[in-house]
Amino acid sequence: MSGPRAIGLGLCTVDMLFVVDERPAFDTTMRASQYLRQGGGPTPTALVALARLGAAASFYGKVGDDPDGDFIRAELEAEGVDTSPCVVVPGALSRVALVLVEAASGERGFTTRPESCADLSPAEIDRETITAADYLHLDDADPGCMQAARWAREAGRPIVYDGTWLHEDLDEFLDLIDFPIVSEPLVRKWMPDATPQQVVDRLGDHGAQIAVYTLGARGAVARWQHGTFHYPAFPVEVVDTTGAGDAFHGAFTYGLMQHWPVDDILCFASAVAALNCRQLGGRSSLPNLSEVEDFLANERKAWEAGIKKHT
Amino acid sequence: MSGPRAIGLGLCTVDMLFVVDERPAFDTTMRASQYLRQGGGPTPTALVALARLGAAASFYGKVGDDPDGDFIRAELEAEGVDTSPCVVVPGALSRVALVLVEAASGERGFTTRPESCADLSPAEIDRETITAADYLHLDDADPGCMQAARWAREAGRPIVYDGTWLHEDLDEFLDLIDFPIVSEPLVRKWMPDATPQQVVDRLGDHGAQIAVYTLGARGAVARWQHGTFHYPAFPVEVVDTTGAGDAFHGAFTYGLMQHWPVDDILCFASAVAALNCRQLGGRSSLPNLSEVEDFLANERKAWEAGIKKHT
Repeated sequence: MSGPRAIGLGLCTVDMLFVVDERPAFDTTMRASQYLRQGGGPTPTALVALARLGAAASFYGKVGDDPDGDFIRAELEAEGVDTSPCVVVPGALSRVALVLVEAASGERGFTTRPESCADLSPAEIDRETITAADYLHLDDADPGCMQAARWAREAGRPIVYDGTWLHEDLDEFLDLIDFPIVSEPLVRKWMPDATPQQVVDRLGDHGAQIAVYTLGARGAVARWQHGTFHYPAFPVEVVDTTGAGDAFHGAFTYGLMQHWPVDDILCFASAVAALNCRQLGGRSSLPNLSEVEDFLANERKAWEAGIKKHT
Repeated sequence: MSGPRAIGLGLCTVDMLFVVDERPAFDTTMRASQYLRQGGGPTPTALVALARLGAAASFYGKVGDDPDGDFIRAELEAEGVDTSPCVVVPGALSRVALVLVEAASGERGFTTRPESCADLSPAEIDRETITAADYLHLDDADPGCMQAARWAREAGRPIVYDGTWLHEDLDEFLDLIDFPIVSEPLVRKWMPDATPQQVVDRLGDHGAQIAVYTLGARGAVARWQHGTFHYPAFPVEVVDTTGAGDAFHGAFTYGLMQHWPVDDILCFASAVAALNCRQLGGRSSLPNLSEVEDFLANERKAWEAGIKKHT
């Protein structure tokens, strides 16, 4: 594949989703209305979004040499995501998560196991592997991501950050980030009383070129060279919001790769996020490029009319 | 592999076991203390028991061509169980089950999905495949198993039946069975007020050579040529009783293959069932032959002293 390539560092899991009417009990047998086993994790799903759109993407993660780790990598490879940078730890267990989805509400409960692979440490990553890619995608401010961000920054590689988890080194980390995209779970802990304007201003103060705060069904607020704007979300029949944020991040990076104007990037990322809510699972309904184009042919005008500039 | 070979028909699943302290809720994240993804189903597990002991075993089951079906077959093949007879249905979904194990009690709750492969129908099975094996193992009295039993009977192949589920054609089916081994879930529905003697007598009236009623930790009652006897269970530190019955059935068939005396077969099968309770999962602690021999070297005398003849 020619064209620019993104590399992403982050957690990866095997998600086992069961859609059920009520909480399972210990002494009964019940039926799930749907079941899906699918790889998860913010960075891998963002990379799958990129690959579906036709961009080159590599995943730099940590798995065990167990069947779950094999599944994670095989599924990514089948999606066209290069997993050759992955660190495979002999004898280690890969991350798995049981996701119980309540049929009526779509609410989700997670059950994970403790003894499993997590972040790559600085000692486990390689500078050349990071800087050989054109874009870097990160999902946390842990020491491994911090090291990767420093190397990418020194090499002039743009960095997209998916900010969901609070980390004590977050402010130091943000100085390295060109494109921070933060979401409500992080902001609730990091700046609990802040307005969206204050959030993107803080990101801007750290040097962000485009600072984005995503608000789910309420759209996104972005601050860039021309000011701060509220962008609406696209209306879509929601089945499962899992992975909507990850889809946004992957599509945002796709837009950067095309050197599109900022409004076009936000429009495209919002569309991909909305389209990814149509089926159960974080990756099931990630669109290809022509699906997004068809969707935007109908929906773009109404969306653009909803953009509001903050004063 | 030389020596006799068993073929087994029955259901197969992928079990996903999570050991948890309490029922999962929809709005929380909790930790499981253990997680295991493992193939399940009575017949496949009995065949793995046989293979671990060194006997040849083939599985005749139905799976989809989905990743779960691939997992079921690959795991059996890795255990040395031949899966070449399996019927792989294009586009179908294989059976999966979420098994939540309560840490304190060991109690289990099952969540399954409805849309998945079940029994082989008579039209899906092949006579030559059944009769080419030396022993037939069945887990139900459904039409496919009934057809297989008729063919095996005509060809003079001994049939071992794992009786757990009640079927309307059970009595007709039992006329074909040399070695019925029934358990409490079946007996509670089939002969709710019967004594163990009455249960094995009814099996004997249908022509059983050895009629066995397994009672979990309370051992087993068997009726054969020399009378009816109560055989004790072996004492063992129980972690999970999943698959104990299946282990018993596989080891029982192993004993038949060796033409051992009936007491020796019951002793061996009871030992393998006990040893299979040492770890989480239906197959995790299935022993090999030397493990059973080592165990029996210490435990056999006490066990034999516990045999009681019914008067």
